[in-house]
Amino acid sequence: MQLAKVVGTIVSTQKDQHLMGCKLMIIKKIDENGEYEKYSSNSTAIAVDTVGAGIGETVIVTQGSTARFVYGNKTTPMDMTIVGIVDEIQTSAPEVQKTL
Amino acid sequence: MQLAKVVGTIVSTQKDQHLMGCKLMIIKKIDENGEYEKYSSNSTAIAVDTVGAGIGETVIVTQGSTARFVYGNKTTPMDMTIVGIVDEIQTSAPEVQKTL
Amino acid sequence: MQLAKVVGTIVSTQKDQHLMGCKLMIIKKIDENGEYEKYSSNSTAIAVDTVGAGIGETVIVTQGSTARFVYGNKTTPMDMTIVGIVDEIQTSAPEVQKTL
Amino acid sequence: MQLAKVVGTIVSTQKDQHLMGCKLMIIKKIDENGEYEKYSSNSTAIAVDTVGAGIGETVIVTQGSTARFVYGNKTTPMDMTIVGIVDEIQTSAPEVQKTL
Amino acid sequence: MQLAKVVGTIVSTQKDQHLMGCKLMIIKKIDENGEYEKYSSNSTAIAVDTVGAGIGETVIVTQGSTARFVYGNKTTPMDMTIVGIVDEIQTSAPEVQKTL
Repeated sequence: MQLAKVVGTIVSTQKDQHLMGCKLMIIKKIDENGEYEKYSSNSTAIAVDTVGAGIGETVIVTQGSTARFVYGNKTTPMDMTIVGIVDEIQTSAPEVQKTL
Repeated sequence: MQLAKVVGTIVSTQKDQHLMGCKLMIIKKIDENGEYEKYSSNSTAIAVDTVGAGIGETVIVTQGSTARFVYGNKTTPMDMTIVGIVDEIQTSAPEVQKTL
Repeated sequence: MQLAKVVGTIVSTQKDQHLMGCKLMIIKKIDENGEYEKYSSNSTAIAVDTVGAGIGETVIVTQGSTARFVYGNKTTPMDMTIVGIVDEIQTSAPEVQKTL
Repeated sequence: MQLAKVVGTIVSTQKDQHLMGCKLMIIKKIDENGEYEKYSSNSTAIAVDTVGAGIGETVIVTQGSTARFVYGNKTTPMDMTIVGIVDEIQTSAPEVQKTL
Repeated sequence: MQLAKVVGTIVSTQKDQHLMGCKLMIIKKIDENGEYEKYSSNSTAIAVDTVGAGIGETVIVTQGSTARFVYGNKTTPMDMTIVGIVDEIQTSAPEVQKTL
C-alpha cells in the first residue's frame, strides 16, 4: 500500500455511472517523514475514500484490482482506494529489553 | 485513478480487431495544480475514452485490468480508460461550520 | 496503453516454452512529440508483437494481465503486447465548426 | 519482488475492517548495495508483514494481487506483503570451477 | 516484459513456505545498449529464476500475476520471474532487400 496525504477533492458530473456517489480524493505520496515523493510514479493520484478521510490527513492507499474489493462492487472502474487513516508513524526501533 | 489532461488523439488503422471503434486519446498526468508530472511513470499514455472527453480537458483515468470493466468487453486489450471528466478540483479544506 | 517506438528485437534460445514463436521487440516509451520518456518507469521494455510492427515504427502497447488476452493463450508468461501501429498523432484540437 | 528495508510501523485505528490485526510496516526500496532507490516508483510504501520482520531488516516484498495469496484472505485490501527476510546478498559470480 | 541483468542472488531462510526452493535473483533493468535504467521504477528487483540464469547474464523478466503462470503454482507469492536468457539484441533494422 502507499503512504499518502489527501490534498484535495474532485468534482466530476460527467463520469462512469458506477462512480456516482464515490468520494474522489486527490492524494500525494509521502515518505516516512511526510515529505512528498516527487520522483515516485503516481506521485499525485485520485483515490476513492472509504474511511471518511479529509483534506490534510495522512492515509493508507491500496492500488490495483485489490482496490475494488474494499468497495464491494467488482464492476466499479476504480483502481485506488483509501483504506485507512494513519494516526502515527513510528520510525525508530523500540528499545530492546535485555532480559537477564 | 490518475488525474490527467487529454493532449491528442491516435490514428491507427493496423491494430487488434477488438480495439476497432475505440477512441484512443493521448493523456498526460498532471498534479492538483495542473502541472505535468514529468517524473511520473506513464507520464504520457494512451487511454480509451468512454465519456466523450476532448483535447484540453482534465480527466479521471483508470488503469489495469479494472479498465476493461468500463467498456463491457473483457477481451479487449486495453489497460487504461478515461472514466470521468473533471469539473473542478478543490484543494483547500472547506470551512468547518461550527454549530452551536 | 503506452505510446512507444520499436528500437530492436531480442534473440533468445533459452526461454519459457510458451514464448517459443513469439516475436520479442524492444520498445521505448515516447511522448506525443516522439521524444523518449527517460524518467518513465519501464522506459525500455520488451513487448510481444501481434500486429507486424517493425523497427522504427510508433506503436500502441498494452501492459499487465490484459496483454495475454491478445495472444489467445492465457498461460503464456507475457505482460506486454504491441496491439497497434500508430499512423498519426493529432495534438491540436480540431477547429470547432460554428454552426449558425 | 522488491528488495526493501523496513524503516517504520504504521499506527491506524480507523481502517478497513479486513486490515484489523495486520502488522503494517513502512518499507523503502534499496538496491543490491543497500542504497535507497530514490527514483524508483513506490520508493516508500506500506507492506503487511507475514514473516516477523523488524525495523532495520532487509526484506523481500511482493506486490499486486499476488500479495493477497500470502495472507490467505482474498478480500483483504492489501497490495504489498513482506514474504521473506534477507540473510545475505551475493553480488559476485561464484568462482567457476574448471573440471578437467 | 523487462530487459534486465542478473547482478546477485538472495539468501533467505525465513520466508513464505511457498518460496522454499525458489532461486531468487537480484536483477537490474537495462536499456537496449546495456546501460542501467536508474530512473525506472523497480530498477533493482528480485525475480524467481526458471531458466537457469546466472550472474552477469542478460534476461527477460515477466511481472505481475502473469509471473505466477510460469512456475505452475498459483499460490506462490511471486510477482516477477525470469522467463528467458537473451542471446543477442538487434537494434538496427535489417537491410530491406529490394526484389525487382
